[in-house]
Amino acid sequence: MSKTLALFSAQHLPQVEEHMFSFVKHYADEATLQTAMSYSLEAGGKRIRPLLVLATLDLLQVPITAAHYQVAGALEMIHTYSLIHDDLPAMDNDDLRRGKPTNHKVFGEGMAILAGDALLTESFHMVAQVALPAEVKVVILEQLALQSGSAGMIGGQVGDIEAENQQINLEHLASIHRRKTGALIKFAIDSAAIMAQANQAVSQHLHHYAEQFGIAFQIKDDILDVIGDEAVIGKKVGSDETLNKSTYTSLLGLDDAAKKLSEHIESGLASLEAITVLMPAADTSLLVELINKLR
Amino acid sequence: MSKTLALFSAQHLPQVEEHMFSFVKHYADEATLQTAMSYSLEAGGKRIRPLLVLATLDLLQVPITAAHYQVAGALEMIHTYSLIHDDLPAMDNDDLRRGKPTNHKVFGEGMAILAGDALLTESFHMVAQVALPAEVKVVILEQLALQSGSAGMIGGQVGDIEAENQQINLEHLASIHRRKTGALIKFAIDSAAIMAQANQAVSQHLHHYAEQFGIAFQIKDDILDVIGDEAVIGKKVGSDETLNKSTYTSLLGLDDAAKKLSEHIESGLASLEAITVLMPAADTSLLVELINKLR
Repeated sequence: MSKTLALFSAQHLPQVEEHMFSFVKHYADEATLQTAMSYSLEAGGKRIRPLLVLATLDLLQVPITAAHYQVAGALEMIHTYSLIHDDLPAMDNDDLRRGKPTNHKVFGEGMAILAGDALLTESFHMVAQVALPAEVKVVILEQLALQSGSAGMIGGQVGDIEAENQQINLEHLASIHRRKTGALIKFAIDSAAIMAQANQAVSQHLHHYAEQFGIAFQIKDDILDVIGDEAVIGKKVGSDETLNKSTYTSLLGLDDAAKKLSEHIESGLASLEAITVLMPAADTSLLVELINKLR
Repeated sequence: MSKTLALFSAQHLPQVEEHMFSFVKHYADEATLQTAMSYSLEAGGKRIRPLLVLATLDLLQVPITAAHYQVAGALEMIHTYSLIHDDLPAMDNDDLRRGKPTNHKVFGEGMAILAGDALLTESFHMVAQVALPAEVKVVILEQLALQSGSAGMIGGQVGDIEAENQQINLEHLASIHRRKTGALIKFAIDSAAIMAQANQAVSQHLHHYAEQFGIAFQIKDDILDVIGDEAVIGKKVGSDETLNKSTYTSLLGLDDAAKKLSEHIESGLASLEAITVLMPAADTSLLVELINKLR
């Protein structure tokens, strides 16, 4: 019987959150720092990255343990720090995030910078402590740093800033987003494949799914920035146009962007199909549902 | 024959720097990001933390390898990121660092925040890649995150900000600096002891030396902020008073601060003496010279 994402999320996400919150509570001894870190972690969001970690483990028929929740939580902590720093006045200068005032609006810029730094640091700290063999932890830590660092997420963010007020082509745009949003999504799925010791063929199909998911995710984000409802998505719409950013919608138009979105979703689904040929007992329904939510 | 620090630095520091620069160059694919990261790494400073790592390995009679340079370099990268973020307008708002314009003065605030984030992330990345057994790497990564994170350096920085414009006592001040500056110094020496697999008694004496070094280092910094020469120390003097910060000199007066500085240096030297009892062949001269430089 195939699982539903809602049930799976309800079963597992509270434990991911519990691990993040208790780690921060344990190590952040300054009250203001702890409050600032927790504020953004608690702001929620869809927790897509942890869900991708856990849904991939589920597909690979691995019983989910505390170590998996912690790796999933560490990834969400990296994502959260990146949002805090991106929202700063010196970057995107956003006042609202997930329908709540951004971190610096509540705690001030200095504390928001430090809360972001601390979430980034504690993310590595948490992974270094999980109950997994040292060899596996080192590979995961290396991947986490690679995908969130200057060749990954941060590089993409810099590329994004550099491209403001510039006409860039589709290839350049894809290169920015492959790093800015794609890298952490790749980590989500690759880290699960590493922890599950998935065979190479399956890992490659999963990796392809992750790439398609990453691009689809970004196109959807660009579309929502044009036609989304501020109340539903919890942030300002039209900000790409305000910042004069090239996006999939500005380069392709809304219709072709939607078509491209569809194509990447289909390509991701095809990878999951290929996995079921290799692993007939695998239940792909969670990853199917996750990517279909981007439609 | 005892070594001199000048000779030892000339022999080893260029290799620490080479590892930092080439790692950044390899992974920072965006030109501006690479330039901003390298700018602050190249600004130099005394490289005290890498020297403490390498001098401790030397005392423990371990031949120094690329892995040691990389761990020492990773520590310097964390230190450098912390300076970039501390100098930001939202924090200490400094225009000069080591006699050069601060990172955000050259590259803008957004890029300075990202360059700091990237140095922090690549520091973990570099350690995850060094040629040491996985078990050792995990311990070092865990310690690096602990000492630079919310229970270590970042916690101390938050404590420092919170104490501005407040009268705090000596114990509170010590607790701030044990984390703000002491934690990375502890990491320098503890990581060397871990890599050298030093026995417990020796490690404890080294740890005591590190603690004394950390306090002495901060007292010296506070004294220089009152009586230092801007041209020599490469940053503004009197900034503690401007920010209305409690310091060792403001709490104790200049004379008693100098006396306290002496006491901690003597206590650190006593730990080194104790090590020579346990390891008669150990050459402590580099760590002796390093702590004596704080006089």
